Amino acid sequence: MNGAQSLIRTLVDSGVDVCFMNPGTSEMHFVAALDQVPEMRSVLALFEGVATGAADGYARMADRPAATLLHLGPGLGNGLANLHNAHRGRTPIVNIVGDHATYHEQYDAPLQSDILTVARNVSSWIGVPRTPDEVAPAAAEAVAAAIGPPGQVATLILAADTAWLDAKGAAAPAPRRAPNEVAAATVADVAKVLQSGEPAALLLGGSAVRDERALTAAARVAHACGAKLLCETFPARLLRGAGIPPVERLGYLSEFAAAQMNGLRHLVLVDAKAPVSFFAYPEKPSYLVPDGCDVHPLAAPGDDAPHALDALADAVGAGAGTAPTAAASRPARPTGALTGETVAAAVGALLPENAVVVDEANTQGLWLSAATAGAPRHDWLCLTGGAIGFGLPAATGAAVASPDRKVVCLEADGSAMYTIQALWTQAREGLDVTTVILDNRSYAILNLELNRVGAEPPGPRAKAMLELAPPELDFVSIANGLGVRATRATTAEEFTTQLEAALQTDGPALVQAVLPSGLG
Amino acid sequence: MNGAQSLIRTLVDSGVDVCFMNPGTSEMHFVAALDQVPEMRSVLALFEGVATGAADGYARMADRPAATLLHLGPGLGNGLANLHNAHRGRTPIVNIVGDHATYHEQYDAPLQSDILTVARNVSSWIGVPRTPDEVAPAAAEAVAAAIGPPGQVATLILAADTAWLDAKGAAAPAPRRAPNEVAAATVADVAKVLQSGEPAALLLGGSAVRDERALTAAARVAHACGAKLLCETFPARLLRGAGIPPVERLGYLSEFAAAQMNGLRHLVLVDAKAPVSFFAYPEKPSYLVPDGCDVHPLAAPGDDAPHALDALADAVGAGAGTAPTAAASRPARPTGALTGETVAAAVGALLPENAVVVDEANTQGLWLSAATAGAPRHDWLCLTGGAIGFGLPAATGAAVASPDRKVVCLEADGSAMYTIQALWTQAREGLDVTTVILDNRSYAILNLELNRVGAEPPGPRAKAMLELAPPELDFVSIANGLGVRATRATTAEEFTTQLEAALQTDGPALVQAVLPSGLG
Repeated sequence: MNGAQSLIRTLVDSGVDVCFMNPGTSEMHFVAALDQVPEMRSVLALFEGVATGAADGYARMADRPAATLLHLGPGLGNGLANLHNAHRGRTPIVNIVGDHATYHEQYDAPLQSDILTVARNVSSWIGVPRTPDEVAPAAAEAVAAAIGPPGQVATLILAADTAWLDAKGAAAPAPRRAPNEVAAATVADVAKVLQSGEPAALLLGGSAVRDERALTAAARVAHACGAKLLCETFPARLLRGAGIPPVERLGYLSEFAAAQMNGLRHLVLVDAKAPVSFFAYPEKPSYLVPDGCDVHPLAAPGDDAPHALDALADAVGAGAGTAPTAAASRPARPTGALTGETVAAAVGALLPENAVVVDEANTQGLWLSAATAGAPRHDWLCLTGGAIGFGLPAATGAAVASPDRKVVCLEADGSAMYTIQALWTQAREGLDVTTVILDNRSYAILNLELNRVGAEPPGPRAKAMLELAPPELDFVSIANGLGVRATRATTAEEFTTQLEAALQTDGPALVQAVLPSGLG
Repeated sequence: MNGAQSLIRTLVDSGVDVCFMNPGTSEMHFVAALDQVPEMRSVLALFEGVATGAADGYARMADRPAATLLHLGPGLGNGLANLHNAHRGRTPIVNIVGDHATYHEQYDAPLQSDILTVARNVSSWIGVPRTPDEVAPAAAEAVAAAIGPPGQVATLILAADTAWLDAKGAAAPAPRRAPNEVAAATVADVAKVLQSGEPAALLLGGSAVRDERALTAAARVAHACGAKLLCETFPARLLRGAGIPPVERLGYLSEFAAAQMNGLRHLVLVDAKAPVSFFAYPEKPSYLVPDGCDVHPLAAPGDDAPHALDALADAVGAGAGTAPTAAASRPARPTGALTGETVAAAVGALLPENAVVVDEANTQGLWLSAATAGAPRHDWLCLTGGAIGFGLPAATGAAVASPDRKVVCLEADGSAMYTIQALWTQAREGLDVTTVILDNRSYAILNLELNRVGAEPPGPRAKAMLELAPPELDFVSIANGLGVRATRATTAEEFTTQLEAALQTDGPALVQAVLPSGLG
């Protein structure tokens, strides 16, 4: 058994049995070892950002990490943006980054670079085994580190000779950490605050919005205390839909978030951060918690938030069965012009039971949340780190993790183009993903932001940098070229019919929704 | 004048008047300022790797840097692979990476990351102005640092508030460094070695292969002393073709390079490194200079290599007009099966006068060098750093730099897919680029390397990770979707006809050359 085989065997024994990859010469022993450890499923990507984004989407749905296999510093660089999103969303990922043989580094060959400095940006754990016998223990440690809780990106840098030389064998799985229990005194303090009668809200995030137990406990607390139930702007995975307690997501625009928190005296954080604006704007505050509002952390990342919420519900005397839930309801099938609003209505009208929704719809997605609030229960995956190019890869990984569920990817045209190669992997693997491209031929968010940052009214040269036409992107041709069937809709009726057909397709399909230009 | 305006004005005054960009909210003041400084040409890319690769191709042809504009750490990450290539090829580039406002960093907003650690990997100069008045001087310094010589990647991290606050004004261009003069004693020592009668070679790279003067002096020396004239494997820009002194490029495979250097007693380095193998292989040497061969540096990067070669020619008494040059000759138009060899023949038969060739053809490009040796003079741009996804972006930038020349991009199918978005920028800007996709539906180099690294014979699972079908990539559809006209050829006659038509097109065109699978 060589180092590469010991690595893959250890990953599989530790519960990591999917690897999204774009390998090169320095990773060839890892690739060759795939036939020795057939339990490892290997999924090829044409670009590393697809591999890392897929690993993010996979782990959000599988609740365990995937591995990635990347080629030296440039491969890691190509994967960095989606690793940033995973890092911000606390998604567990185990990166394997191939490197030159240990003795080759001294020659400064063309692909030599400082992988460590790049890895540090997104990795909370880094391992650099220097002998083949160190590889398997490092792999076991990487998996445990990735799982946390909280989840994190763990990166193992694999020198080629540590992969090809003989190794002792696989390592046993490393011990897993249990979530931290929240102190009873903390729960009691928060209960007292919520029972004070002063205006209060719970702000949920991370592990507090992923499952019905946590959401139900939080909703009981809010109901019993008359508190608002808010959710971070971009949760990694939000359970919602008919029968599930609804939460109100904080708006992306700081003015909206401020309005949602206006008048609050207490904000209870449950695996969420005190809200700050995404970007700084001249003359606008970065910290969004209102003056005079006290912040009370109940559960931090890595804490057992669902248990803390259960305890809190008991402490405030919230009755069982009192959690309000969303009523089943769907919008009518839309007619007329195709806009962000009618796209949302069609999605709401047709979203299948138990769907996984990957949301990178950006400006044109404004109406999606309301239109799907009463749709059958589903998971909603957001862009946690703000690095666009997340949607198509994450949908790819989510579909690998959830083969029995329909994945619906709601994707802005500009964002789609960073990692469009994901469609090929969907076709290759026959993944059940329906992609909707919200095509407004614009980086519309930047048109909005250009005003918000207080820049002078844009001239034609500035405006041109925010427009995605000419030439117009023909996503039907692009998708076909990548092996995915696709259609193009210009009215609400066309879109609804085409979306319905795509959702009934078993395998990948794409609908290009041609919307009014820009912000519409 | 705000900081952003002072920045762009300073760049333009320093001779940097093209910016390849993919901006976000934190760069909106830079974008707004484009209308105030119309001398700056802004070119939009759909993905940052296109912007950085275009900046590389631009500077190789323009002999001065372009700027890039990238969005925080993830934007820089997306651009990192092609910055690695530029760094390795000593291409001058000025990166502007937007960052949050200085006072916003404390809030750890979603897009916060450690831009510095990522930038360090590829940048020989980094500037982080913290006030608006520091921006313009830093920009002037960045340009001078980028130019060198040798060229380097300079990165200026632009906090949003330093862009939007008032600044004093533009800065004057910073003083430029002259190339180092090579000492007369060094020239004399090398002359003595070459006149010893022992087997010797000159190994040229960088600034020694870019122009006729340097090549002619080197060829006179080699001719006078009976020395071999070699060139680094992947030169950034090699002048070649009819009437130009030919040089022999070292092979990529270490066995080939070793054979080319076999029996040498002396190797004279002229802006080139002593050859090492690209990757390490079990039981194969990493350092390729033969045992018993002495290495003699004549000119290092940043030295005045052309002048040193002139001096050396005089020192060895090489006569004027004695440099052998390549005779004009073209292969016949090929017929029959379409293979790497017949593609090369067609390129050789049709390459226009004064073309710029961007070469990322990889395994299927083996025959290109011989087939074009006697074509009309042209520049040949190689993948200097081994990070694939270079070709289409570099061709884009080269075309911006050389509007009166035809750019011919010879691109492997696998490599094309990393940065395929470049085609859209070519269409948007109407750039005169003919792209040939060498489509063998395989990462063929990895099939070769899998054997060379001594891995066990690959099983079906390993082999699948090296194959790009199914599904087959339809580059005609993809190119059309990105606004570029395209055709598909399956015979040598079809390819030759289609290439001829594409070369006669004014603007971007693509020909997909369907070759035998894998290594053919």
